[in-house]
Amino acid sequence: MASKPESKSDAEALVPQFQLEKVLNQDQNGRRISLLGTIAAQPALIILERAAFPTEPTLISSLLASLTGTKNLGANDIYRWYMANRSITTTTGSSTHEASTSDSQLSDLKLNLIYPCTPQHVRKYSAQRVRMVTETSEIYATHIKPYVARQRAAGRLEWVFNILEGRTEQEDVIARYDWDSPSESGFLLLPDLNWDRKSVEGMHLLALVQRRNIWSLRDLKKKHIPWLKSVRDQVVLAATKVFEPGQVEPDEIKCYIHYQPTYYHFHIHAVHVMLEAGTTQSVGKAFGLGNIISQLETMHGDEEAGMDTVDLSYFLGEEHELWKGCFGRLKNNEPIKLR
Amino acid sequence: MASKPESKSDAEALVPQFQLEKVLNQDQNGRRISLLGTIAAQPALIILERAAFPTEPTLISSLLASLTGTKNLGANDIYRWYMANRSITTTTGSSTHEASTSDSQLSDLKLNLIYPCTPQHVRKYSAQRVRMVTETSEIYATHIKPYVARQRAAGRLEWVFNILEGRTEQEDVIARYDWDSPSESGFLLLPDLNWDRKSVEGMHLLALVQRRNIWSLRDLKKKHIPWLKSVRDQVVLAATKVFEPGQVEPDEIKCYIHYQPTYYHFHIHAVHVMLEAGTTQSVGKAFGLGNIISQLETMHGDEEAGMDTVDLSYFLGEEHELWKGCFGRLKNNEPIKLR
Repeated sequence: MASKPESKSDAEALVPQFQLEKVLNQDQNGRRISLLGTIAAQPALIILERAAFPTEPTLISSLLASLTGTKNLGANDIYRWYMANRSITTTTGSSTHEASTSDSQLSDLKLNLIYPCTPQHVRKYSAQRVRMVTETSEIYATHIKPYVARQRAAGRLEWVFNILEGRTEQEDVIARYDWDSPSESGFLLLPDLNWDRKSVEGMHLLALVQRRNIWSLRDLKKKHIPWLKSVRDQVVLAATKVFEPGQVEPDEIKCYIHYQPTYYHFHIHAVHVMLEAGTTQSVGKAFGLGNIISQLETMHGDEEAGMDTVDLSYFLGEEHELWKGCFGRLKNNEPIKLR
Repeated sequence: MASKPESKSDAEALVPQFQLEKVLNQDQNGRRISLLGTIAAQPALIILERAAFPTEPTLISSLLASLTGTKNLGANDIYRWYMANRSITTTTGSSTHEASTSDSQLSDLKLNLIYPCTPQHVRKYSAQRVRMVTETSEIYATHIKPYVARQRAAGRLEWVFNILEGRTEQEDVIARYDWDSPSESGFLLLPDLNWDRKSVEGMHLLALVQRRNIWSLRDLKKKHIPWLKSVRDQVVLAATKVFEPGQVEPDEIKCYIHYQPTYYHFHIHAVHVMLEAGTTQSVGKAFGLGNIISQLETMHGDEEAGMDTVDLSYFLGEEHELWKGCFGRLKNNEPIKLR
């Protein structure tokens, strides 16, 4: 049944024949869709994706020059956001046409403008090289733990204590659980900043524990296992209650912790299992809470044995204080200098 | 210094004034770029993103109808891939113009067509509900381990052995290391299917170990620590050699393993630390190799103690055999039925 190989133009002619039946899936933050349909009465699948942008400055300039139908959606001080399309210029015969679409439901581009911007903005949006590091128990004890203690002493956690004590951001607190229970199992639930607070599958919550003597993953010990299990079970239950009953089941909640965390008061990320997994959930940054508990359970040593004894591998941007003051210096055989 | 609030049209008028100076960063698989420039001699930042597709079938149909400049890049049997743009129709006065661009360097869309497709394709590209499960050591011993043994006995790994023994896909093998060493440290390096084999920061390699008695993470024991460390160090070194010296440093390689893996012959993912982290690297699927080694080092028990004793939490699609035959049934108190 050998047949003539399909030519490029034959292949190209197939696409316009596609008759859409159903959208099967949408992923990569909505920038990829899978479409089921037919071509000449036979089933066909189209997977349509937004393409990557070019990186060459001339092509970027030409892309910017082609922006059209730019529609401002909102603004706050120096921050403004827009939807946009591209105009396309064609020359047919002797005349030049410029065409653009005003159909905002089909916008191809999102655009944020920060103007005027500061050097801090430039740093934040610049690419930084990322490195894998291994934090041994010795490096932790000698350098990282004292660094964390200094961060706390310097008042870097005041904002957390303000929330815990009900002084600020109370409108954000979704609920408090087991507050002031003698088992120290209390925690409160906040929406993560990146969650729109509406989409079920995008749900991203933070559970801030009430107790203050667990600074990070490194402070978890075998003696904390019952506490951890109780908090985990309650966080999962609390997360299912954010929406109407039945919308989110307990086995649709994923709990993880970060190391290094952004701030040194123990907190748990609870997300919908369908939430698009990006850097925040990735290996070398996120540790599954269930797996940490299980790791503690099978760890040698008494009740005081804990996560301070293991080597932890994770990634750090070169702009991170711990790279600049510690791991980058170790790599170059320079003395460690952590504020 | 109160000033008149900026109107939407004022905000919109700023965008065309932007003069590009520099591309600062590109992320989200190249679908977001940060641009530094000026507006009226003051610094400005634009963050430009591809927008999410609509999900309403009518809008999708109109998007498909607007495809233009569809360029076939390649085809293999029923699989074809393309770049494309959108045409834009405008009515000016009494005439209707259709415009399209032929500048393929600025394509906005990627398109895959599978035609004719099968029900398997449809299943693969359909949205499926995802669940978190906890595989205890008992579930592993009673159900999962026998399931893995049956998979192996049924010849599901023939393709791996064909590669290891040099019968197929030899053109893909990047290199063999320590092959037939008495320490059993041998492995070979393959490119992952999703890597274009060119982009440095997109590097994604698979190290298939030569020994055949480690089926998954679950078979790793304390006695394997020296072997694991040796393989890890060599995989990292091998990965830095894929490109010209100096392009990739050892601390830019991230090593992880999957549980559940796609196939039950021990293999290590080695990726560039800048590779966009998606589901394949996410918590509940990916386990850092360094952290697994460290977990084994601090585990109680003798040399035979290992990862078969821990509870592992991970996510599974509802279409996965292990959900349909095991965890979904456990949830519903039904008897387990795994082929």
